Amino acid sequence: MNAATADISDIPGLMDAIGRQAVAAASVLAQTSTSAKNAALIAAAKAIREHCAMILAANAEDVQDAKDRGLSSALVDRLLLDEERVEAMSRGIEDIDALADPIGTVIAEWTRPNGLRIQRVRVPLGVVGIIYESRPNVTADAGALCLKSGNAVILRGGSESSRSSRAIHASLIAGLRSAGLPDSAIQIVPTTDRAAVGHMLAGMTDYIDVVVPRGGRSLVERVQREARVPVIGHLEGNCHVYVDGSADTKMATEIVLNAKLRRTGICGAAETVLIDRRFERAGDVVKALLDAGCAVRGDDTLQSLDARVTPAAESDWSTEYLDAIIAAKIVNGVDEATAHIAKYGSAHTESIVAQDQQAADRFLSRVDSAIVLHNASTQFADGGEFGMGAEIGISTDKFHARGPVGVEQLTSYKYVVRGAGQTRS
Amino acid sequence: MNAATADISDIPGLMDAIGRQAVAAASVLAQTSTSAKNAALIAAAKAIREHCAMILAANAEDVQDAKDRGLSSALVDRLLLDEERVEAMSRGIEDIDALADPIGTVIAEWTRPNGLRIQRVRVPLGVVGIIYESRPNVTADAGALCLKSGNAVILRGGSESSRSSRAIHASLIAGLRSAGLPDSAIQIVPTTDRAAVGHMLAGMTDYIDVVVPRGGRSLVERVQREARVPVIGHLEGNCHVYVDGSADTKMATEIVLNAKLRRTGICGAAETVLIDRRFERAGDVVKALLDAGCAVRGDDTLQSLDARVTPAAESDWSTEYLDAIIAAKIVNGVDEATAHIAKYGSAHTESIVAQDQQAADRFLSRVDSAIVLHNASTQFADGGEFGMGAEIGISTDKFHARGPVGVEQLTSYKYVVRGAGQTRS
Repeated sequence: MNAATADISDIPGLMDAIGRQAVAAASVLAQTSTSAKNAALIAAAKAIREHCAMILAANAEDVQDAKDRGLSSALVDRLLLDEERVEAMSRGIEDIDALADPIGTVIAEWTRPNGLRIQRVRVPLGVVGIIYESRPNVTADAGALCLKSGNAVILRGGSESSRSSRAIHASLIAGLRSAGLPDSAIQIVPTTDRAAVGHMLAGMTDYIDVVVPRGGRSLVERVQREARVPVIGHLEGNCHVYVDGSADTKMATEIVLNAKLRRTGICGAAETVLIDRRFERAGDVVKALLDAGCAVRGDDTLQSLDARVTPAAESDWSTEYLDAIIAAKIVNGVDEATAHIAKYGSAHTESIVAQDQQAADRFLSRVDSAIVLHNASTQFADGGEFGMGAEIGISTDKFHARGPVGVEQLTSYKYVVRGAGQTRS
Repeated sequence: MNAATADISDIPGLMDAIGRQAVAAASVLAQTSTSAKNAALIAAAKAIREHCAMILAANAEDVQDAKDRGLSSALVDRLLLDEERVEAMSRGIEDIDALADPIGTVIAEWTRPNGLRIQRVRVPLGVVGIIYESRPNVTADAGALCLKSGNAVILRGGSESSRSSRAIHASLIAGLRSAGLPDSAIQIVPTTDRAAVGHMLAGMTDYIDVVVPRGGRSLVERVQREARVPVIGHLEGNCHVYVDGSADTKMATEIVLNAKLRRTGICGAAETVLIDRRFERAGDVVKALLDAGCAVRGDDTLQSLDARVTPAAESDWSTEYLDAIIAAKIVNGVDEATAHIAKYGSAHTESIVAQDQQAADRFLSRVDSAIVLHNASTQFADGGEFGMGAEIGISTDKFHARGPVGVEQLTSYKYVVRGAGQTRS
């Protein structure tokens, strides 16, 4: 069966056809030159610009539907496209064009005493499955990242954004065709039936090499429960800023404010501030947060510093607010801070503000998170800010990829060994 | 509950205690110096030598039990220790001592335009679970590799080798103690109840970061079915040698013989030889195999070359014999060879013998296996032969680790970012 002509009510048959076509496309993409992949990206970016009106029309229908179904304004905003957001998608694809192609890179090479020359060479993973929710731009970002890294991709977006995603997908296909690459390099699951997600997680182990879920807690939990394929996980970001006794007050205040409030809805936003008992200006930091409109939930000491601080409950230490709320606690130095982070954190991103280099080194070494920072905001947790180009998310796993997941993290490697007739004794 | 005093009939309680202690040990090991880890390794190697008689006595009981239960002589041989094998274990641990410590290595570093200095630093995975079968030496190898890479390890050996493994484990503990490291850095599951394996695969997701299964098909299948934690998989090695039309006859013969017969029981042993229709001396290669005592199952052409060649069935192309049997087929050049390998291979190790550099490059690029070789035997598929030191196996996964799994493959990384007060605009 061909996925393009498949009966979309026959989910197993449909997903099987999609999987087989993805594997076939992956073997083509693994051998595709950088210039052909880039040509497809440039053409896709151009097609998105040209079809902006069509994409916005499809999006308007999605948005109307979402409003009719009473979805929250936050969800509608995530769904909404305008000319600026469509242009940003095109530019995002052009940024991916500009990235170095990781495929074929020799990561390491050495020669053995018997003359064998060994190279470790970067290769694509194969077929990547992306399961995402309402943001239609993921269709463009994920499609382009997978193409650049030589992987075939199976995209399964949220039902709310299905018309928008299909319209964007049509432009990606136009890009593939103009470069002579198979349509099935970037497939979108043509049904919003949730059974399709189950197939991607557990029924397509022969086809899918890795699944990347992008979404809220219920999706992540479903993935953890059901996945029979490797997953690059994106758990929540319960990020911390620790203000050491040695911190500069102005720097501490600026970093805490930025880490919490620059954007509250991203996974790198700080959710708890830990303040060293020896830091004398805790009141200044708390006041700055409150004055900026942030609710502060603190322990007794912090409540005594400002009447606007409300009591923190045990659950606050593990909550990812994604809002203008912060939990705040006085701790006894760097060791109590790292112990608190180990107990309550999600191993995403944590920062220490300190002038004391030893305290900083101890924090950076002991905190086992994907990203640890000294004297910088947690909001830098971002592939672009790291100089890695676009990303598909921030992995909180330790396995395979940790931190920002960009083109390089979507690859594997193989060993290429060249000899002159060597046999093993 | 403490694992050391746990009721071993209460599997959930026992495994929970083991898991919690492993996590606690992992946080110590992550901060342990190279010299302390090496001191523990050296002391463990010494203890194994000193306790050789005790280890052999425990092993003799295991072997007697295995014979009484009528286990195959191959299994008994895998189980059997003698002074030489015990000495090899000690030397293996000393080799791991001599390896560079991967932990703390800066894999990459760069500075952003805003002055942020970013380092990607190698860190341990955390807690590694090893599930293995009869070979007692895995206890020493896996324990030592995990210690060197800063991981706590939970070992679950086969019931046949339980007395031997516990005796070896006692020496590893002696090594840990002499270096002031916690006993729970290397734990061995003190029950042969198969329910313990189920817990390692699915009930300890809060404790175990990765499971490495070492064993036969039924173990691998159980792991694939049940695992809720990441797995470094070691599937079978259905390895191929392709003899191109351009191959040197002597080199082709030597490589095919070595790849098949040097040791037939290892995963890097060749199981199928594919011979280019244009290679004129196919008869020489087949005759050499037959003369060396290898059964050859071939297609019609090969049967016509030597009467001793028996017909190959379809199932022969996917069989890992691990014995002096080889499947043999005439193919039409490198593309038919790579297509055959893609269809029947296990993505482990494949070799091309060719004088034609273009044919070799095409093969090395197109074959998507962990290891691809040109003019060398597949039996080089080995961490030691690669110069990586000891290994825990050869991964046929593309995710995280591919090929030989040594100390470096038992690590993750984190990003350490140093700033001077940067906030994100």
